[in-house]
Amino acid sequence: MKSAQRLLEYAAKQGVSACFANPGTSEMHLVAALDATPQIRPVLCLFEGVATGAADGFGRMTGNPALTLLHLGPGLGNGLANLHNAYRARTPILSLIGEHATYHRANNPPLASDITALARPVSAWLKTVERPQDLVVDTAAALHAARTLGPAALILPADVAWSDEEPDPVTSAPDASPQGWLGALDQAAAALDARSVLLLGGRKLSARACSAAQRIAEKTGAQVYVETFPTRIERGAGRAPLKRLPYLTEMAVGVLAGAETVVLAGAVKPIAFFALPDRPTEIAPPGASIVEFFPPFGDPTEALEALADAVGAAKSHAARAETAAGATDAAARLDPGGFAQAIAALLPENAIVSDESNTLGLYAFDAAAGAAPHDWLTLTGGSIGQGLPLATGAAVACRDRRVVAIEADGSALYTIQSLWTQAREGLDVTNIILNNGAYAILKFEMMRAGINAQTEAAAELFDLRRPGIDFTQLAAGFGVPAQRVTTLAEFSAALRRSFATPGPTLIEAIFP
Amino acid sequence: MKSAQRLLEYAAKQGVSACFANPGTSEMHLVAALDATPQIRPVLCLFEGVATGAADGFGRMTGNPALTLLHLGPGLGNGLANLHNAYRARTPILSLIGEHATYHRANNPPLASDITALARPVSAWLKTVERPQDLVVDTAAALHAARTLGPAALILPADVAWSDEEPDPVTSAPDASPQGWLGALDQAAAALDARSVLLLGGRKLSARACSAAQRIAEKTGAQVYVETFPTRIERGAGRAPLKRLPYLTEMAVGVLAGAETVVLAGAVKPIAFFALPDRPTEIAPPGASIVEFFPPFGDPTEALEALADAVGAAKSHAARAETAAGATDAAARLDPGGFAQAIAALLPENAIVSDESNTLGLYAFDAAAGAAPHDWLTLTGGSIGQGLPLATGAAVACRDRRVVAIEADGSALYTIQSLWTQAREGLDVTNIILNNGAYAILKFEMMRAGINAQTEAAAELFDLRRPGIDFTQLAAGFGVPAQRVTTLAEFSAALRRSFATPGPTLIEAIFP
Repeated sequence: MKSAQRLLEYAAKQGVSACFANPGTSEMHLVAALDATPQIRPVLCLFEGVATGAADGFGRMTGNPALTLLHLGPGLGNGLANLHNAYRARTPILSLIGEHATYHRANNPPLASDITALARPVSAWLKTVERPQDLVVDTAAALHAARTLGPAALILPADVAWSDEEPDPVTSAPDASPQGWLGALDQAAAALDARSVLLLGGRKLSARACSAAQRIAEKTGAQVYVETFPTRIERGAGRAPLKRLPYLTEMAVGVLAGAETVVLAGAVKPIAFFALPDRPTEIAPPGASIVEFFPPFGDPTEALEALADAVGAAKSHAARAETAAGATDAAARLDPGGFAQAIAALLPENAIVSDESNTLGLYAFDAAAGAAPHDWLTLTGGSIGQGLPLATGAAVACRDRRVVAIEADGSALYTIQSLWTQAREGLDVTNIILNNGAYAILKFEMMRAGINAQTEAAAELFDLRRPGIDFTQLAAGFGVPAQRVTTLAEFSAALRRSFATPGPTLIEAIFP
Repeated sequence: MKSAQRLLEYAAKQGVSACFANPGTSEMHLVAALDATPQIRPVLCLFEGVATGAADGFGRMTGNPALTLLHLGPGLGNGLANLHNAYRARTPILSLIGEHATYHRANNPPLASDITALARPVSAWLKTVERPQDLVVDTAAALHAARTLGPAALILPADVAWSDEEPDPVTSAPDASPQGWLGALDQAAAALDARSVLLLGGRKLSARACSAAQRIAEKTGAQVYVETFPTRIERGAGRAPLKRLPYLTEMAVGVLAGAETVVLAGAVKPIAFFALPDRPTEIAPPGASIVEFFPPFGDPTEALEALADAVGAAKSHAARAETAAGATDAAARLDPGGFAQAIAALLPENAIVSDESNTLGLYAFDAAAGAAPHDWLTLTGGSIGQGLPLATGAAVACRDRRVVAIEADGSALYTIQSLWTQAREGLDVTNIILNNGAYAILKFEMMRAGINAQTEAAAELFDLRRPGIDFTQLAAGFGVPAQRVTTLAEFSAALRRSFATPGPTLIEAIFP
């Protein structure tokens, strides 16, 4: 039996069930091995950025690593941006990256490059399987790292993949998961009062975790915030009405002003997205003490429940998100407020939202606090082109749930090929493209940087209207039925229709 | 004046005239500076892989570096695959990569990553401008490296970009270009006989270079071949009828069998693209001596003419490519032979061909030896998704020439966003998509690897027909008029129409 097959069989036994693939010549033995491991479903993607983003969506929703199958350094390169987002999300992913045969690398063939150098910045764990003997031990370590720390990468030389040599068995259990919170429980409990902020994050903010945080806040008087770009949060009407820390540094600084202590539960210390001339880069007030209560790679639910008990919080919280009002069916043109209201009113129960809406989706998250219970996923690493792949992978993971991608036009165009995989797999994804014909966020960021955004070069480089992009035709080209809407009533009708129709659809929402 | 503007002004003075851009927040000062340097035309791309591939096409056709403007590590990541191809082509490119402010990097904000690590594998030269004082000196060194060695990368922290500090002037001229051939002239001349092979490559194989090589062959009895994937070659009817070294290792080994000496003129030592079980990785016979006559980063024209003189070659060559026969206007379905014949017969004079045709374009290069004089550009680094961006950049460089992209369906889908930039810029590009609904080359490579390619997983992962992709709709979505053809007659008619029509068009050629 070839190493490639042993690797996949081992992964399958460890619960791996999906492989988002865009293979090349050096991965042919892995392709062959997929045939012998029917437990692992191969999902073809037309571009590696779709494969890595889909693996991120799959990992966020299942807590279990999917494989990606990438072709050498350039294939990894194409997938890097979404691996960056997954790395910041700490999503369990195991990337299998094909490499030239060990004895061929020194020849420097045309497709050779330093795969390790390319993979390291986006990998929590990384190794080249240099010998067939190491195959299973390395795979076990990679899977463990993916589960505990985030994206892992296993680089597989072709001659190792095609070797028949028997690998060494796994003889020792991998190290236990890192646990950072038990020691800090007393410290965190003592720190929580009206002058403190509890900042939530981690791989998943479950409804229970959010409830515990809300109960802690109600008991201690601490403020509670979710990190600006949470990996995954369970929320909706009746649940704890938690707010996110604002994206804009100046607003986030205002929110934390006066805090003497920031208790981190799954979040990292808040930092400005970008430095700007004469602006702060730290969000917490100077001198505020930071208590690291729970590390960012895990699910903080149990830790937060223990903390709630430690502060003597009530068993249920008082504040609850109110059910959203109905969607407006007005003939008015779409605007961010009406859009948010429609999403909140119409989102089906148990939906998964992949949010890369940037400027136009500004109000959607807060409005959807009152929607039917759902999961909300965000752009964790700031690298655009995540939303459609993430939705695709989440839909592969959760075939019984409706996935809704709320996607900015400019961002959608990085990985628009996702639509084809949705059509191929018959995934229940509602893709909403917010089309304002511009990189609107850059106009805004340019003004924030103190620069006149009305210059000719800026007008040229932020414009998506010359020519206008027709997303309904792009969708049709990839096999996804699509519709263009311009009014709130049309949008609401299109949403209802999409939610009632199996398979993917695309709604191109034109904003003035 | 801000450093960003000083940088662009210096580059403009050094002859830089285009910037293929996909900027982000950290590059706003560079965007502002583009307004003050009208000599540098900003060309917006919807995805960084389009920007880097277009810069490659521009650099191949002008010999002059274009800028790319990329957003941090993830933006570079998206552009890596085509920078890999450009690195293998030794194309002059200067990538400007935005970085967080120097004082913000240690905060590890969400978009931070190790940009140097990501850029190094695809850069002939690389530096972060750590201090505003170094700005012009670093830019001068980067431009010199780009011109002499290949892709250079300048990483520009935001606080350096927005600094008003005056940079140090350039006080010493950069080192002279590397010259490797003069010393080897006698050795190469002595080595060339009927038992030798002259292998051509480099940044550009001019018609004069090809003529000199043909004259050398006719005088000495040496065989002459062009490297498998030349960066750029000038050719056509009446010119030297040079052949490329075959892609398949077994065929290439056959071609070089019996050679006692291989003289490299701009090419590197030939090596198998991929290792396969029990197959050789070296192309030249064991024991053959290798003479490095001219290095791969330059234009070998003058060196080859000097070599022709040194061996006493005639002033003109005897063998000349015969003018191609007319296109067949048969109602027969498209096939690779008929396709190649139509291209050869109809290619307009002075056309530029960007060839990423993989399996279906197999015969096009040889057939087009008899076409009207033209340039042919190939997939130098083997990383697919190059063809449409390369055509786009070549068309920006040469607005008076027709550019023809011969593009495989699977490859086209990596960087299909190129079409929008073609429409926006009104570029005279004829995009021919060879649609066989498959990653056909992988079926073939799997068989070569000795694996049954008829397995279910392979059928799943090499298939592009479920659902079929409609390239005419994708093109229309991006603003490019398109047409689908299935017969040779339809294809020829569509080609003629496209060549007679200004601006971009797309022809979807359906192969059975």
